[in-house]
Amino acid sequence: METIAYNLPQSHIPLAWYNIVPDLPSPPAPPLHPGTLQPLTPGDLAPLFPMALIAQEASQEREIEIPGEVRQIYAQWRPSPLMRARRLEKALDTPARIYYKYEGASPAGSHKLNTAVAQAWYNKQEGVTHLSTETGAGQWGSALSMACAFLGLQCKVFMVRVSYDQKPYRRALMEAFGASVTASPSPLTDAGRGILAEHPDSKGSLGIAISEAVEVAAKDPNTKYALGSVLNHVLLHQTVIGLEAIEQMAMAGDDPDVVIGCTGGGSNFAGLALPYLGRKLKGKSHARVVAVEPNACPSLTKGRFTYDFGDTVHLTPLVKMHTLGSTFVPPGFHAGGLRYHGMAPLVSHVINLGLAEAVTAQQLDAFAAGVQFARAEGIIPAPESNHAVSEAIRQALEAKAEGKSRTILFNLSGHGHFDMQSYIDYHAGKLQNYDYPEEEIAMALAGLPVVG
Amino acid sequence: METIAYNLPQSHIPLAWYNIVPDLPSPPAPPLHPGTLQPLTPGDLAPLFPMALIAQEASQEREIEIPGEVRQIYAQWRPSPLMRARRLEKALDTPARIYYKYEGASPAGSHKLNTAVAQAWYNKQEGVTHLSTETGAGQWGSALSMACAFLGLQCKVFMVRVSYDQKPYRRALMEAFGASVTASPSPLTDAGRGILAEHPDSKGSLGIAISEAVEVAAKDPNTKYALGSVLNHVLLHQTVIGLEAIEQMAMAGDDPDVVIGCTGGGSNFAGLALPYLGRKLKGKSHARVVAVEPNACPSLTKGRFTYDFGDTVHLTPLVKMHTLGSTFVPPGFHAGGLRYHGMAPLVSHVINLGLAEAVTAQQLDAFAAGVQFARAEGIIPAPESNHAVSEAIRQALEAKAEGKSRTILFNLSGHGHFDMQSYIDYHAGKLQNYDYPEEEIAMALAGLPVVG
Repeated sequence: METIAYNLPQSHIPLAWYNIVPDLPSPPAPPLHPGTLQPLTPGDLAPLFPMALIAQEASQEREIEIPGEVRQIYAQWRPSPLMRARRLEKALDTPARIYYKYEGASPAGSHKLNTAVAQAWYNKQEGVTHLSTETGAGQWGSALSMACAFLGLQCKVFMVRVSYDQKPYRRALMEAFGASVTASPSPLTDAGRGILAEHPDSKGSLGIAISEAVEVAAKDPNTKYALGSVLNHVLLHQTVIGLEAIEQMAMAGDDPDVVIGCTGGGSNFAGLALPYLGRKLKGKSHARVVAVEPNACPSLTKGRFTYDFGDTVHLTPLVKMHTLGSTFVPPGFHAGGLRYHGMAPLVSHVINLGLAEAVTAQQLDAFAAGVQFARAEGIIPAPESNHAVSEAIRQALEAKAEGKSRTILFNLSGHGHFDMQSYIDYHAGKLQNYDYPEEEIAMALAGLPVVG
Repeated sequence: METIAYNLPQSHIPLAWYNIVPDLPSPPAPPLHPGTLQPLTPGDLAPLFPMALIAQEASQEREIEIPGEVRQIYAQWRPSPLMRARRLEKALDTPARIYYKYEGASPAGSHKLNTAVAQAWYNKQEGVTHLSTETGAGQWGSALSMACAFLGLQCKVFMVRVSYDQKPYRRALMEAFGASVTASPSPLTDAGRGILAEHPDSKGSLGIAISEAVEVAAKDPNTKYALGSVLNHVLLHQTVIGLEAIEQMAMAGDDPDVVIGCTGGGSNFAGLALPYLGRKLKGKSHARVVAVEPNACPSLTKGRFTYDFGDTVHLTPLVKMHTLGSTFVPPGFHAGGLRYHGMAPLVSHVINLGLAEAVTAQQLDAFAAGVQFARAEGIIPAPESNHAVSEAIRQALEAKAEGKSRTILFNLSGHGHFDMQSYIDYHAGKLQNYDYPEEEIAMALAGLPVVG
């Protein structure tokens, strides 16, 4: 029997997350207070996050121990599977070897649970009883709802209106875990009321929903805010993905030539890529590291690397990242988790340093790749993950054209069980590709804050 | 760290399925030809099934080797996880130890893929190019569609009308795998046309859909029929569940006092239970073996153990089983996979021999148990699986009341990602319990064929 599954026992869950910051040739630019334009102090963030996470956000430690109780919860699905896609290789008739790390095996169906559990746990340690958050496609909201159910916290989710209406089953999942879910923009917050006054039919955006969730946390001492991507501590928690993958690839006796992840806020990409980049900086890996973003929301490939707000209403700190402008609302393509105007500052920084590269994928190519993957491997990927699949297939076909082998590793960040409408629309010919939204982005970039 | 996951490497996938028949104190009654009332010959089944599966159906061999290519495909999700539900134990404050075998980890989301892959493979070996089948809740149709995609066969699914209308995403999943899906009753078959002529608004039933799928296979030499439960060879393929569980429970240093599965056609129950019953017959297990069926469709607890047809239109052989009468159409409760008038003859036989017992669960108790399980363990069970969860929780609370430990093992046969409407309805208070449908069953039983 050919080996296709490289599974590790529970005892091999990493003992520590990997923080790449001390290994980088230069540090990422600090986040700034939006009023003073001075580097943020821990106290500035205290209304929103517990101190332990604020400390992680700015940590210079290479390894940060994973609390025992968090590892205990991880044990339900971690180490996650690393699989070789041999049937896909055969279908492509490629000499390339294709591996995927499957984060959809988590009970929440995506990588998001890795940080949701950690964030809920640290909040609980500091006496927090309620968490507020936003969700676009619903993967993050599901994960945080589940983590809160595990740890006995109340969870309040602002769900982007268009997803709220299109994905009742995502909402039902969160509600089954005891979360309260509100369509955003909502009349519950100043931010939401402001948007609704101007645009009563607003379909919402991740940037708006972040504003609402942040406002709720800022105003209530028992409530903290939890973010599912972008921030350093979120990316940190995801590094279990890459740390496990490195061990599993060694089991396979193989070493990736290319490491691929899709990027919206950047966390699943970073989770797989940062541990590999850390090895690369030590000369222990030669892998090209590739971020794949949608053509319709191309922050890394077309955005400006500068300070901008993380949200639409400008309640968040200013962070230096690749941004399309915080007022940019991307077109309504189906990978909701990739519809974000900005990028994780740490991902932007490693791209800017030339340690990793970014490419775009078109929606139709991404879905075609997802369907091909599903028929070969059985797993229906999330529309976000299809972007990574698409690049993996492109690389495998490139290797075939060159007549050379290539070891490809990509992150299959989640399954698409709650995204079947997008597959129905794809098969019905209702989906489209998107040109680079040049004018809208130019307008949004023109409104960027002038900093530094 | 407490161990909760008892995972085995790919190399521990069983080499052979376990056939309990030679170990039983008496053989099950043979299936009969519906015309002659004589025991079926292999030739009678040849229009519907490949010879290898017909041979398995009547096999007296204790072990039947799993073909290498089938084990290779199994390796994507097998050995499936065996988990200890420690958070559920804590939530129940019970001295019982609760383990579950998680078949929802298969890419099809349920145990059904175990037999789907095997059936598709044997058909392909004998040159079959098309498979026809029926599906109720959609789990079997999804699994067979996926198996056909893996092996390059065409798949034709008759989906019970009520599910077809209520579950567009299940249908989309099958179609993503390249299957063609038709609402049943359909105008494509004599059976369907006959039902539609009498009941133009028929919502269909598993029995009707079976009639349609069988008819298509019987009339087309390139098409064979595949059944997702009930038959001996289907139960045989599911025994990988129990064989793995026995090894995993040994890893856990524990031995079940009770083994639980939900029963519709009987295959997930049998998959876990038959290997344990085989050990029990050898004095190597003391486990009580419990089948859980819905109160609204109680074939094992209220049906008659006699010969009946497997389908509504009476195209199938007569099999001796616990039946509510093949014309009985169960009420529209949400566990579609348990809405079947009959039972696997082999399961009926072991119940009749007193080797296993059967209980019923009410719909609301099943959903309450499923939600409690989800909040503790993160996995949303399929409505069918909720019946097993419900009995596991009942047993754990009984152990608590007795102040004694108890080792409980149940089969979590699938996840509920495509069943979220049922959870929405449950939370909205729209679901109900059902009384035992006494009159309808009496009427259906009165129409039983008189045999022997």
